[in-house]
Amino acid sequence: MTARKLHCVRPVPADIDIAQSIDAQPIASIAEAAGILLSELNPYGSTRAKVKLSVLRRLESSPNGKYIVVAGMNPTPLGEGKSTTTIGLAQALGAHLHRPCFACIRQPSQGPTFGIKGGAAGGGYSQVIPMEDFNLHGTGDIHAITAANNLLAAALDTRIFHERTQDDAALYRRLTSELETFTPIMQKRLDKLGIHKTDPKALSEEERVRFARLDVDPDTISWRRVTDVNDRLLRDVEIGMGKAEKGMSRRTGFDIAVASEVMAILALVDDLADMRQRLGAIQVAKSKTGASVTAEDVGCAGAMTVLMKDAVEPTLMQTLEGTPVLVHAGPFGHIAHGNSSVVADRIALKLAGVDGFVLTEAGFGADMGCEKFFDIKCRTSGLKPDAAVLVATVRALKFHGGVEPKDAAKENADALRAGMSNLLRHIHNIRKFGVPVVVALNQFNTDTEAELALVKELALQEGGAADVVVTNHWSKGGAGAVELAQALIHVTQTMPSNFRLIYPDSASLKEKIETLCREIYGAAGVEYLNGTEEKLADFERMGYGDFPICMAKTQYSFSHDPELRGAPTGFIVPVRDVRVSCGARFVFPLLGEISTMPGLPTRPAYYNIDIDCDTGKVVGLS
Amino acid sequence: MTARKLHCVRPVPADIDIAQSIDAQPIASIAEAAGILLSELNPYGSTRAKVKLSVLRRLESSPNGKYIVVAGMNPTPLGEGKSTTTIGLAQALGAHLHRPCFACIRQPSQGPTFGIKGGAAGGGYSQVIPMEDFNLHGTGDIHAITAANNLLAAALDTRIFHERTQDDAALYRRLTSELETFTPIMQKRLDKLGIHKTDPKALSEEERVRFARLDVDPDTISWRRVTDVNDRLLRDVEIGMGKAEKGMSRRTGFDIAVASEVMAILALVDDLADMRQRLGAIQVAKSKTGASVTAEDVGCAGAMTVLMKDAVEPTLMQTLEGTPVLVHAGPFGHIAHGNSSVVADRIALKLAGVDGFVLTEAGFGADMGCEKFFDIKCRTSGLKPDAAVLVATVRALKFHGGVEPKDAAKENADALRAGMSNLLRHIHNIRKFGVPVVVALNQFNTDTEAELALVKELALQEGGAADVVVTNHWSKGGAGAVELAQALIHVTQTMPSNFRLIYPDSASLKEKIETLCREIYGAAGVEYLNGTEEKLADFERMGYGDFPICMAKTQYSFSHDPELRGAPTGFIVPVRDVRVSCGARFVFPLLGEISTMPGLPTRPAYYNIDIDCDTGKVVGLS
Repeated sequence: MTARKLHCVRPVPADIDIAQSIDAQPIASIAEAAGILLSELNPYGSTRAKVKLSVLRRLESSPNGKYIVVAGMNPTPLGEGKSTTTIGLAQALGAHLHRPCFACIRQPSQGPTFGIKGGAAGGGYSQVIPMEDFNLHGTGDIHAITAANNLLAAALDTRIFHERTQDDAALYRRLTSELETFTPIMQKRLDKLGIHKTDPKALSEEERVRFARLDVDPDTISWRRVTDVNDRLLRDVEIGMGKAEKGMSRRTGFDIAVASEVMAILALVDDLADMRQRLGAIQVAKSKTGASVTAEDVGCAGAMTVLMKDAVEPTLMQTLEGTPVLVHAGPFGHIAHGNSSVVADRIALKLAGVDGFVLTEAGFGADMGCEKFFDIKCRTSGLKPDAAVLVATVRALKFHGGVEPKDAAKENADALRAGMSNLLRHIHNIRKFGVPVVVALNQFNTDTEAELALVKELALQEGGAADVVVTNHWSKGGAGAVELAQALIHVTQTMPSNFRLIYPDSASLKEKIETLCREIYGAAGVEYLNGTEEKLADFERMGYGDFPICMAKTQYSFSHDPELRGAPTGFIVPVRDVRVSCGARFVFPLLGEISTMPGLPTRPAYYNIDIDCDTGKVVGLS
Repeated sequence: MTARKLHCVRPVPADIDIAQSIDAQPIASIAEAAGILLSELNPYGSTRAKVKLSVLRRLESSPNGKYIVVAGMNPTPLGEGKSTTTIGLAQALGAHLHRPCFACIRQPSQGPTFGIKGGAAGGGYSQVIPMEDFNLHGTGDIHAITAANNLLAAALDTRIFHERTQDDAALYRRLTSELETFTPIMQKRLDKLGIHKTDPKALSEEERVRFARLDVDPDTISWRRVTDVNDRLLRDVEIGMGKAEKGMSRRTGFDIAVASEVMAILALVDDLADMRQRLGAIQVAKSKTGASVTAEDVGCAGAMTVLMKDAVEPTLMQTLEGTPVLVHAGPFGHIAHGNSSVVADRIALKLAGVDGFVLTEAGFGADMGCEKFFDIKCRTSGLKPDAAVLVATVRALKFHGGVEPKDAAKENADALRAGMSNLLRHIHNIRKFGVPVVVALNQFNTDTEAELALVKELALQEGGAADVVVTNHWSKGGAGAVELAQALIHVTQTMPSNFRLIYPDSASLKEKIETLCREIYGAAGVEYLNGTEEKLADFERMGYGDFPICMAKTQYSFSHDPELRGAPTGFIVPVRDVRVSCGARFVFPLLGEISTMPGLPTRPAYYNIDIDCDTGKVVGLS
């Protein structure tokens, strides 16, 4: 490995100052050390490169490395440092213990970088560099998602416009003029309609109408446009208000780009062919007779795949200590599964090999991020995790024990003991999947020895954690996570994972929802509001019954109520709406209001962000 | 040079088949042959690389190559092949005559690739490759423009929202909380307001209000959002319709991304510092008291520059024959200046050196593209063009002589003679700028010897063209433009350019408009409608009187009326509106309805576009 020695100073400087103080190594060197051939690399500048999926063919018969998911307790306003732990642990395993090790993390949304927070992967002496390249544009994947998502939106609305303003004959003529045979994309729609003809002239009048009219019911359109900007004014808009649109206006809205189903798909695909198929399967609306209208019907799924052809390759970057990081995909954690990509994990597992480790981060608390990692991501990929690292802090545990953030630094054994309920339930939950748990306890100056000892004791004895390790990688880099790394190595050597899913594909959608609510969240039951039981039955009739469940709930509590800290019980989970992502292949119940478009505060981060025109360096990212 | 031999077959295959039949050379080889150091290159995959502006410092004292603008007659539905000529001529000069030669061209908008036409730079055996990389995403510059443009839009609207919903004290407190001194970005606004204080606590009540309240008059907002998709439904929208926006809805619209002023700025900047300054100067609205509200006032011009920091570097690609191409910027041709970037031209001129040539393409007909190249781009850069290549076809000339497209293939000396009026006026116009003109006559099978001879005779004798050469680079690659290349070399050796601008900076805005209308368009006069005279006077009062004029008129005629072919006279140009781009620094009069958002036809190009999942190759781009 191309390890590099960090000189950690105190007090720990700002993230960007640490990040910019270290010159990133040429990405080709990082790739070479990681076992990637130059011919498998598509460089983007000198510090990033896309890795071709052909690596997987070359290493098909190689053994996988250990597959480790990094999850957290329910997040608090105090910050627990899950990303920082993922990076710090990678630095420890790679640069200090000389194990082949990859961190697989999500590409951040660009919007929030200029909003509330300044971005960054990790922090302190555990970061991905260069920070600017990580936070801005990446290698264009989110831009590609935006383009594909919005092409589909424009194609759908414009098709409705053309269908409204043209009679049957004109519409069919314009769709097929000068064609001797239907294009392959048209043929897909004909196949779906059961019309097995290739010559546009051979269709009957009735077949022509069925082919040419998607006959979309505008009230059923579920496809929204996206932008990678925090633009609250676009949450609810009316489009098509120009005179030329002939009165075809309608209400819709924009989401932030990473909320697009295209992102959820990118994170789950096996390869380009799988992506092509899934993009075509995206359901955007229903016809007036209730038929599913898909991207394939609209005719632009091929073009969407073309736009996404480079995005399917993960991006190689590096940590401060020169260990390899694969950055790929970053779907929302509530309306989607919140995990980085299957292909990045696969590539990393093959490259890491039998002695190596792949650390993949799960979004939010383990009740969502890790559960979805198991039940959606691993179910899809067939990969089996070997262990989980569960990140906690004494301060956050006290918050879950009822103290306010401002008091979380004070020693408080009662609050800590009460708050441990949160961590313990997460440990129990992960163990239900047959996966051993190592707790990483990120240390703060204000933590007392007694507090750290109490967490350790309860997690081991009441939780059944495989180990609990205090870590200091934020202030010490990989050196501060060496003990955690050693514990992880030991656990994976001595405690084989017995991974199992918590519900079978064949369970009904309601059974799946209820299993999650009782087994993972600790609920007393589920209530189905607003006709959601009928909607679920309808999904099963339409063939989506095999899909897993992707719960859209708050990340702040095991329950649907963000105010319920610790490990609440006795609550009834309200299912307020249910939707389906037919391309990503999951059903997502909504338990409350979920915002898919953040806003900008009165003083956004951009008041600090500028460029030093003499050096070209970015200033003020934090 | 890394020339490669083309084997041209007949009939000429589809563009994408030719493009995909030739493996692009490694871009590092192209760069090396072009005199670019590896350390000056930021590769994007193996076939594209950004070129750092540091080349300019290294070659500061080197002589420039010959600076050639490639322009066209007024475009017709038949297509004249201006891009194809730019590329074919580069292939001839570089691969056949072994001169250092660069083609500098615009990055295409991605939207239309999926709409009416399939994209492509050039055609036949004169193309930029790989075609997919050229047409899709590029190296992310347009995505960066979209991000910067839309960040400013979101920042402006959200600021208005916060100003509406907070009282003076709360607004100021949130803007400055925890700040001991104003951020440098805030300081810029304070400087503009004449408040010379650094401590937020030191401002008087009145100063606090002036600082915190941009006090935007929503009716004056001129900044629109953009997307790189042909999405007609977004032309006119109402935003902010959600309950959370508290009634702050307003009408606005989206343009296609390349219509953003950020694109116009990118094409004109000298360096990052110039870009930072121009982005800050963008005027987005006026306050209720009539003051200019800029991106700097909104506070996000630094962040916009950060988003654009890589976009300022041009992208190196190659022709089918391995000659270097710089792709950079692609502003609209009517509401902006329609020319590729100044920095790309500068870099190419230094790299080409004293024996070399730089071919830069001007958009639309020469009455707009070439005039703006001279009066806006060269005025801004100070660069002096050595010659112009003016592209024409016999068919297009006959169209301008009154025949319909379907009849343009038939021999018709009268129509040709009549249509020559169009070409002759373009020749005369370019000569008014002191620049010698070489006419490139792209040959079609249907052209007769007599027709070609007539064009040649009139262009030389009546037009005063320096030379007229028949070309066949579409079917023969560079070999088909060798004679043109030789003519160009000869002209630049024997006819020194005596470049001059057609109006001085100091002329009034009305004088500038009238000069263009009379001298270039052949108009009898100008009429100012809808209060445009007052608006122009207002622009001069606000300090924009020195800006050049960027006429937003139809590209199909010298006049404002697209139906007036040939060389119309006697018409009065109606100025229907006037606007200003304070960052790009030009005033643009609108002579008619200008669409800044294309639509999708009933059968868009995407019905043919897909990916071959086995090979990863794109199919159906045309």
